[in-house]
Parts: sequence; C-alpha cells; structure tokens
Amino acid sequence: MKNILLTIKYDGTNFAGWQRQPDQRTVQGEIERVLSILCKQNITLHGASRTDSGVHSFDQKACFKGKFGIPVDKIPKAANNLLASDGTLKTGDVMIVKAEEVDMDFHPRFNALGKKYIYIIHNGAEPDIMQRNFCYYIHNPLDIPAMQTAASMLVGEHDFRCFMASGGKIPKSTVRNIFSTNLFARSGDKIEFHIIGDGFLYNMVRIIVGTLIDIGSKKISANEMSRIIAGKDRRQAGHTAPPQGLYLAKVFFDKGDIYEDKRYV
Amino acid sequence: MKNILLTIKYDGTNFAGWQRQPDQRTVQGEIERVLSILCKQNITLHGASRTDSGVHSFDQKACFKGKFGIPVDKIPKAANNLLASDGTLKTGDVMIVKAEEVDMDFHPRFNALGKKYIYIIHNGAEPDIMQRNFCYYIHNPLDIPAMQTAASMLVGEHDFRCFMASGGKIPKSTVRNIFSTNLFARSGDKIEFHIIGDGFLYNMVRIIVGTLIDIGSKKISANEMSRIIAGKDRRQAGHTAPPQGLYLAKVFFDKGDIYEDKRYV
Repeated sequence: MKNILLTIKYDGTNFAGWQRQPDQRTVQGEIERVLSILCKQNITLHGASRTDSGVHSFDQKACFKGKFGIPVDKIPKAANNLLASDGTLKTGDVMIVKAEEVDMDFHPRFNALGKKYIYIIHNGAEPDIMQRNFCYYIHNPLDIPAMQTAASMLVGEHDFRCFMASGGKIPKSTVRNIFSTNLFARSGDKIEFHIIGDGFLYNMVRIIVGTLIDIGSKKISANEMSRIIAGKDRRQAGHTAPPQGLYLAKVFFDKGDIYEDKRYV
Repeated sequence: MKNILLTIKYDGTNFAGWQRQPDQRTVQGEIERVLSILCKQNITLHGASRTDSGVHSFDQKACFKGKFGIPVDKIPKAANNLLASDGTLKTGDVMIVKAEEVDMDFHPRFNALGKKYIYIIHNGAEPDIMQRNFCYYIHNPLDIPAMQTAASMLVGEHDFRCFMASGGKIPKSTVRNIFSTNLFARSGDKIEFHIIGDGFLYNMVRIIVGTLIDIGSKKISANEMSRIIAGKDRRQAGHTAPPQGLYLAKVFFDKGDIYEDKRYV
C-alpha cells in the first residue's frame, strides 16, 4: 500500500469545480476515473482545496492510496494521456505535473500550512476575448494605490467572517491568519492580487477581490477595509468577484517555503 | 439599402471556423443568425478571410447589406448581447467591435489590399495549460536567429505553391507578395511571428510556421528556405503548425496603413 501525492494543474473553465459530483465533469471525478483505470481499482482522491467551477489551479495537491503495479514516476504521463484523450476536448484541460510517494498519514488538506491564491483583473479600454475565462474584466480605471493600501490591512490574524459567503460548510472558527498580500500592475493592463494565508473561508478571496475593486472604483474608501473586517458582516464588504480570475497558486506543506514565497509574493 | 462593414474579434476554439456550414457552430453562422434577428430579415455576411477551426481573430472584417431600422452604431452592442447569451457559453467568444456604413460596392475580400497574421509559439520548459488553445507548445529550445534568417527570405513576390495545403479552392495563381515578416521573443517564453502580405494560400501561414519551427529545431537549415520556395513542392516544406497559435491580426483596405504597420510589424 502506497500513499501518492499528486501536483495538478487545471483550467477550471469547463469543470464544475474540483469536488466529485454525480453527472458533472469535475477535476476530482476526472482524475479518479483515469487513476482507477491505471491502477485497476477504485481510487479516491483527497484534495487540498475544493476550488469552485471556473477557478483554475497551478498547484492543486491531492493524495490517493492503493496497491498498484504502475511505477510512481510513470503516473503523470500515463494519466495525462488518458486525460487529454477525452473526446470532448481538443487538448487536455487538466494535467498531473508530479506524483510522489509520501508517508501513509500525509493528507494534503490537514498537512497544508498555507495556501497562496492569485487573482487577475484585466483593467483596460476593452475586453480581451481570448482572456475572458482567465481574468475579471473591469473597464473603468482602478485606483491601484488605494487598493494596495486596503490590501495591506488584510494581513494578520483576524475574524474574516465579513468575507465568507453563505452556502459553504460552516467552519468551527472564522479566524484566519493572512501572512501576506501583494497587489501590482502587470503589462497588458493586468492587475494581480496575491494572497497567502493559513486557510480561507468559502469564497473569501473572491469577496476580498470584489471589495478591493469597489475600493479601486471609489465606491468604498480604502480606510474602510479595517472597519469592514471589524464589522464581521458580509453586507458591509463588496461584491463577489467572478471565479474565472482566481488561481490556486500554491499549497505549502513547509513553513520555510511560505517565508521564501513571501519575499516574491 | 445600406452596406455595413463589421470588425469582428473571436476566440476560434469552439467554432468550426469562419464559414457557415450546416449543423456546425461557425462565426459567420452565429453572426448571421444574430443579425437576422436584429434586422428582421435574412442576413448574409461576406468575410475578408475564411479562417479555419481553432484560428482566432482580432480584426476580421465582414459586410452585409439590408434595409433595417436599427441605427448602425447600435449594432455592435445589440448583437453582442445576443451573441453572449448563447446558452452553451459562460461568456461570448465572438464580439462585434465596430459597425460602419460603407459604399454599396465595398467588399471586404475584394477590397482588401493586404492581411496581417500573427502566430504565437510557446517555447518553454513545460506547457501552459491555460494557454493551450492560444499558442503552439514546443518543448525543445528553438534557434531564434536561424528562424529569423529564414523568415526574412519570405519577403517579396514569390510563387508560394510549396506552402499551399491540398483541400482548399485551387487559386488562379499561387504567386503572392509578402510585404514583411518579423519573428521575435516575447516575455513568458513566447515567440511571435508576424507576416503581412497581399494574400495567403490555403494553410500558407501554418505551413510557413511549421517550416520555421523545423528550421529552429535544426531539422532543416535556415538557408534551405529559399530553395524550398524555389522548389514549389509542398513535400520539401515543413509540417503544418496547428490552428490554435494563429490569429488574423489585421485586414488592410488602405496602402498607407500597410506601410504604417510594417514599421511596428
């Protein structure tokens, strides 16, 4: 019996999210289907993050256990061939980047010390049709310094209830520790928001980004951010940014990696 | 009766190309369907370029004639609303950018003095799953100077029969005038190839790019390019690059614009 940790990239556009659901094409469902063929047994995956429909990932982590013949290092290529040959797609929209054996008690969700998400806003004169599934288009120029000021107020341990959508599993605690945030302009009229924290509530990053955009659009003043957090009321925060701009960028299992990454956040 | 010239952008991924075909989703078919609703009559479009399935456009031009009530400048917004509300898509993958009235005898194909195509190659250590429908991924490092040398040999008036795929309509002449080419590295491991000419044979840009890649991969030497053109034999040229890296970038109706664009090619 082995416990295998996978690193998975996907374009979330044509998936009904990560989590397996009957009669829906999900990332977990697709990978379990393919691994079950390769390993000749029913495979169950445990993922680090249950990304929503339309959300992308550069670095999802998931584990499965089994006794199987295929060498661990051959799993990515063999699985990717099956994943890409899905008749409905011209090329695969999910890819296993790496497979490695880990301790039997390793679990990607419980062992994760932190996660990094990236959100991409396209703030230009006209929408880019080729990028429509990969960023959130905002026409009016955003006030980036105001958004930066507000983003810096997110750092630290706070009760982030104000940024939690209803509909998810209610967590025991709504306190989360945000290690770092960064917001900056990129070439091609892109604004990137990076956030690293020990965990995130349901839709938390998307509501934070919606609030930052409302601040950048002068609907909310930057200094309100601290008051919104303290208010613990979802109705005081901004709108929920759509899923297509959001990327699960990194899952951290090592504290050192978080500090290393913060330097380049 | 008016003759309306449209400027159209599309992501070609989910279209069976430009040209109307029964029971297939095509760009021409979709826009004709929507304009027929708006103008309350059967609308026929005449496009400048019949792009293949998977090929994108920043600047397709197409005309239609009709007597209709809707003001010309309201056509883009009204049509885009209908185009984006296609139930099978989350967001529209085709957009009318502009509508303008032109002379009754104006025809986007016959009046075009030139076209510019861009081809994007992704030449990096690993494929980018989010870009899979928007570039051609090549793993091994390409020799860009060799490709630049070969690309410069394309300029001028030549019989380009060697770069014509079978299957298209056989043209009266296979002589075309290439005004300029440019090949350069972009950030993010991208290589862009720009080509402007008075016209292009069936699959000509894709076969040129495949040949350039074979040159960059040292399968063909750069100096062979002139010999390949002179040989007039498709079998001497390289492979056909796939459609997803190709963009119709500009249709020129004015000689001055071509010279202007050449400076920034």
